[in-house]
Amino acid sequence: MKELQWEKAAGNGLLNRRHLLQLGLTGLGAAGASAAFGQDAGAILQIPEWSRMPGANASAYGERSRYAGDLQRMAGTPDPIYPGGGSSRTPLQFLQGTITPNALHFERHHAGIPDIDPAGHTLVINGLVRQPLAFSYENLLKYPMVSRINFLECSGNSGALLRGGNADGTAQSLHGLLSCAEWTGVPLSTLLDEAGVSPEARWVAAVGADAASMGRSVPIEKALDDVLVALYQNGEPIRPGQGYPVRLFCPGWEGNISVKWLTQLKLMREPAQFRDETSKYTDTMPDRSSLQFTFPMGVKSLITSPSGRMNLPRPGIYQVTGVAWSGHGAIRRVEVSADGGATWAEAEMQAEPGDKALARFTIPWEWSGGPAVLQSRAADSAGNVQPVRDEVLAARGTISFYHNNCIQSWGVDDGGAISNVYV
Amino acid sequence: MKELQWEKAAGNGLLNRRHLLQLGLTGLGAAGASAAFGQDAGAILQIPEWSRMPGANASAYGERSRYAGDLQRMAGTPDPIYPGGGSSRTPLQFLQGTITPNALHFERHHAGIPDIDPAGHTLVINGLVRQPLAFSYENLLKYPMVSRINFLECSGNSGALLRGGNADGTAQSLHGLLSCAEWTGVPLSTLLDEAGVSPEARWVAAVGADAASMGRSVPIEKALDDVLVALYQNGEPIRPGQGYPVRLFCPGWEGNISVKWLTQLKLMREPAQFRDETSKYTDTMPDRSSLQFTFPMGVKSLITSPSGRMNLPRPGIYQVTGVAWSGHGAIRRVEVSADGGATWAEAEMQAEPGDKALARFTIPWEWSGGPAVLQSRAADSAGNVQPVRDEVLAARGTISFYHNNCIQSWGVDDGGAISNVYV
Repeated sequence: MKELQWEKAAGNGLLNRRHLLQLGLTGLGAAGASAAFGQDAGAILQIPEWSRMPGANASAYGERSRYAGDLQRMAGTPDPIYPGGGSSRTPLQFLQGTITPNALHFERHHAGIPDIDPAGHTLVINGLVRQPLAFSYENLLKYPMVSRINFLECSGNSGALLRGGNADGTAQSLHGLLSCAEWTGVPLSTLLDEAGVSPEARWVAAVGADAASMGRSVPIEKALDDVLVALYQNGEPIRPGQGYPVRLFCPGWEGNISVKWLTQLKLMREPAQFRDETSKYTDTMPDRSSLQFTFPMGVKSLITSPSGRMNLPRPGIYQVTGVAWSGHGAIRRVEVSADGGATWAEAEMQAEPGDKALARFTIPWEWSGGPAVLQSRAADSAGNVQPVRDEVLAARGTISFYHNNCIQSWGVDDGGAISNVYV
Repeated sequence: MKELQWEKAAGNGLLNRRHLLQLGLTGLGAAGASAAFGQDAGAILQIPEWSRMPGANASAYGERSRYAGDLQRMAGTPDPIYPGGGSSRTPLQFLQGTITPNALHFERHHAGIPDIDPAGHTLVINGLVRQPLAFSYENLLKYPMVSRINFLECSGNSGALLRGGNADGTAQSLHGLLSCAEWTGVPLSTLLDEAGVSPEARWVAAVGADAASMGRSVPIEKALDDVLVALYQNGEPIRPGQGYPVRLFCPGWEGNISVKWLTQLKLMREPAQFRDETSKYTDTMPDRSSLQFTFPMGVKSLITSPSGRMNLPRPGIYQVTGVAWSGHGAIRRVEVSADGGATWAEAEMQAEPGDKALARFTIPWEWSGGPAVLQSRAADSAGNVQPVRDEVLAARGTISFYHNNCIQSWGVDDGGAISNVYV
């Protein structure tokens, strides 16, 4: 590797993107790797076995490579006293870009995944409307749809870290209640228009067809703004674990309010005060008062690689990458620190960030072999900046653990081992 | 259903989007569908079985609903004299939005799918460079990446329809060599910068590690523009059928040039004249001359529903929806006709169309019960308008069948049966 003039972007090894990584092996001369240029082939590199014989035929349903690692969600152990309760977490540290494949999208269930035959499923709109309506799945499919790429995050995501526990985890185990997909469905406003919302209606109480009758109340302003009655996820019908056949989707808001297996929308003067907006999903403050209906997920970011339980094999250049998102708009900027927040460098975005969508950032970093603390800090189009942990603790304490959007820290020890740390 | 004042948008039943569909069942009174509002429940609708008992637990890898239809690719029958040759087609008529799930993304193989261990895979850059380089998969992952949502279309897609055959097919069987995904990888320009491109280099010859040594030549201007050395598709590592571990991705260009299992990039003065850019993937004109290197896919659109082999059960309102795309930029407008092109109405786009990405359009249509011919016509940001079939035939004849982007027609007979027609 030749000597390079790298431009430093911030302390402890963060580099400007505009340098040469020079990770290619040199000394090849004019030799090639393939059989296509006969005279070059084999001079240095062997023709591998898989290039010598035809491979498998095209199939009806594509599979993943057996060499691509164990891309699985992390699902909790079933609890017999809470049947069907639990979650599964997205393996963020193995993904790139912003879309989450449907089979890896996080889930949170309160009574398991109902096996719904759409022919027997109905969506009712009633309450304070001119005319109550019942929609079959077949008829919902006939309405004009819109598509949006949006993140979804459980309000309990990263919650344990507010309390200071669970340090020995991965990006998946600590922060994996976060995913992003293209959602397609009928604007809720279209269906509400047909039912005719009464002037006194201020809330839409949404109920799922699971055995928990999971319910949440949506303010009418949001319901008439960008909420979808979602039918497709990343192009295909929503999967059972995501709410098949019909899911309410509330862009940018805590995941729980995007009610799965949607079967009723009741227009009301007041919120319904469902169990999942009183005993749960409500933020209890240090003075024991409760903040209710804190819907939008705050601006937040997470370094997904390198991250918890990874090991840096040797000093050298690493690409620091992660995701950023905000329930208040689009990501405008992500900064990265390698010295625990003492100095910051602006990361590159891998694509133009979308509204209420995951955004992917990247910045090269030269690990010296000494201790380091990697952090990321996001800012959004509404002017919000991701807070440090102490700010969140001071404002909200640790009785509740929802809505933790604080800056998260990965500690790198001098052996290259990485773990969550509190700084 | 109450009487509505629908605004006509074009002949034979095309409607303005801004009307009420009114497909909800009325007569509910104040009754509800769910168990959440106890006093309402059951008055009209029964509580279904799946709402009475907890469902399945969260899992490590999500599955599709058994009720969601047969979403499979259509793969051809293996041919023993062309081992591994063939394709699989995306079920366009069952998808919505614009993203294609990876397992359903179309494929075209020339010697099957190699089972590549990335630890034994190398990408060589050589030829007219300052310094030939060899990259391991591990090292490619360390480079800064970018993400792009782009369509991919085989240049042979819809080809049979140019010659007038295969009328009795579906959107999948006739046009299914088309998909769209988020591709993430290292800009090719980054790696070429490190190798140091010689001033006399005008082409990059790209070769795959399959047993066909599939090769294509890319002009240097494109290579330095938006081409990716792609490593991830829709967030996860590219699947074997899509080129795992490394694929060249050339946005907007015929699919074949996005070389899978990429193992060599050779900088050259002239194109390499690989088999797949001479005997194949070259457009033979009526005068027997050949158009070579006709890379960008023309502006095109397709109605995916209703579409071939579907049946309209009864006269009434249907949502006409489909996809549009262009290798020259973003989709600006899609028009739909229900009378074989006599009159046209502008469709709504379901999201802001992206550059060289699928765009989804929709328009309501009232089928009277009589004969109809449904067509769509797209225009792109470069000023191109999708041509009629006669224009394409006059310009290029039928010796070749590549690059057929003509307006396609679905005929609806008075029994509601739909098939491809030529008008």
